[in-house]
Amino acid sequence: MCVLVVGSVAIDSVETPFGKAESVLGGSAVYFSLAASLFGPVRLVGVVGEDFPKEYREVFRARPIDAEGLVVAAGKTFRWSGRYRGQMSEAETREVQLNVFEDFAPEIPDSYRDTPFVFLANGSPHTQLSVLRQVPGARFIMADTMDLWINTQRDALIELMARVDALVLNDGEARRLTGEANLLKAARWVCGHGPRCCIIKKAEHGALLVTAQDVFALPAFPTELVVEPTGAGDSFAGGMMGYVAAGGGNPTYEALQTALAWGTVTASFTIEGFGTSSLHTLTRSLLEERLREFKRLTQLPQEHSPL
Amino acid sequence: MCVLVVGSVAIDSVETPFGKAESVLGGSAVYFSLAASLFGPVRLVGVVGEDFPKEYREVFRARPIDAEGLVVAAGKTFRWSGRYRGQMSEAETREVQLNVFEDFAPEIPDSYRDTPFVFLANGSPHTQLSVLRQVPGARFIMADTMDLWINTQRDALIELMARVDALVLNDGEARRLTGEANLLKAARWVCGHGPRCCIIKKAEHGALLVTAQDVFALPAFPTELVVEPTGAGDSFAGGMMGYVAAGGGNPTYEALQTALAWGTVTASFTIEGFGTSSLHTLTRSLLEERLREFKRLTQLPQEHSPL
Repeated sequence: MCVLVVGSVAIDSVETPFGKAESVLGGSAVYFSLAASLFGPVRLVGVVGEDFPKEYREVFRARPIDAEGLVVAAGKTFRWSGRYRGQMSEAETREVQLNVFEDFAPEIPDSYRDTPFVFLANGSPHTQLSVLRQVPGARFIMADTMDLWINTQRDALIELMARVDALVLNDGEARRLTGEANLLKAARWVCGHGPRCCIIKKAEHGALLVTAQDVFALPAFPTELVVEPTGAGDSFAGGMMGYVAAGGGNPTYEALQTALAWGTVTASFTIEGFGTSSLHTLTRSLLEERLREFKRLTQLPQEHSPL
Repeated sequence: MCVLVVGSVAIDSVETPFGKAESVLGGSAVYFSLAASLFGPVRLVGVVGEDFPKEYREVFRARPIDAEGLVVAAGKTFRWSGRYRGQMSEAETREVQLNVFEDFAPEIPDSYRDTPFVFLANGSPHTQLSVLRQVPGARFIMADTMDLWINTQRDALIELMARVDALVLNDGEARRLTGEANLLKAARWVCGHGPRCCIIKKAEHGALLVTAQDVFALPAFPTELVVEPTGAGDSFAGGMMGYVAAGGGNPTYEALQTALAWGTVTASFTIEGFGTSSLHTLTRSLLEERLREFKRLTQLPQEHSPL
């Protein structure tokens, strides 16, 4: 089934110890779409400026990504420039030009309003709430957020939480939002505010899936090949939501556990190249192969000598 | 089969956001012994001062821990005082009195020299090497280390690495030792210097088992109950070595994978109480129960809908 994503479409410049990329396609909705579209059709809502290169639109056409909802506004496309150093665990933002993204007030095309699976990429909670009002038929909604909104629009974020099925955020954000140092306590706090589940992303340390009653933990895919981490979180969410949507109905807990693994392996490809480069060549069979490898590297041998 | 541990026996004072403990039994060899002795017999080599409380010796008698090698020297027992704050990911040392531990030159009793499994707890690599010369029949040797030795006795540490089967260290130490930000690369560097495997402890984020050809990753036991983390690493090593020694021979890769899980669940008990308190009441059946729970919380459901 179809997934709707509402988020940023950007032009990124990024530098890591391994090199740099100038003015490449980026943005949360882009990483998410490229990942989720490996599992099924995606509908994208975003905004770009008149400078948005035509060839970047081709990227969507090469996949089942409907970009009817990608509006062109007068002005320039959102630009982000950043750098990763050392362990590359966090991006150092060098420059942000919001441009047309500053006044982004997403209008969901009529043809998108019945989409059953919805991902609200990182954005103002007020904007995320305005999207929810436009998708009354949504069956499973996942939202992302970030420090900025936790600090400046906390009330709206709490309101949003009461209306989504899943909140995904990173470990630092979870701690900041909840005031809990322990991540399981932090996630339980989130679940106490509405969402059926909270997913905490810990970058190289893996991810947690937490419900009011349960918890499931996976490590990241162990790899030496980390070239550039931008988009890891959004492609993780794309892999998760893509798998969930492919299942059709309201996901079972077991489906969410499996989705966590699909998100993990999808993100493991993203970080192997600059920008979206490794997502363009990614296929379902490569994903399936890596999931098998991920299981081999993280799942205990079935038989072992008794204690 | 029997495990020999050589390390510190201490009197600790520690404070966390949850309370404090004054002058309690501690030290790497103690945490290790209490953990490993749940799997089989342990021989302990260490030194204490004349002030070492008699009742602390009872702790060893309550388990299959042979403390013939625990020497009493003129002077006072090693004392450590520390504090954990916030996420409690790292101890802040407030005071160290090495006392009799300063001149610790371990002499392995004759009756211990044939011990097949040996754990060299954190200590000067020169001291660790001197122990190795006294256990010619050792079949599987694991060593721990710390920043201090990486910075001050690097050559001796490299020499030690060539003579052990496994090196266990935390993520920060692995990065410092190798200069590699990526933990898998760091562990491979270690394996290139001698050990058959390198185990990287990542506290709340789990652990990695790395060989020249392979890698295995487990998350930590997901828990809200973290009271005081001292000894987590040594009891993790104790659970691992205890399981390996119980297997008898040179461990297979599968046995090491399973040992990583036993170490993980053993450490999960240690952090639930101050000092060694929760290790005293720990039993094999509690460990087995938690291992089953750990698998439920970290192992993917066997059957899931295809992509």
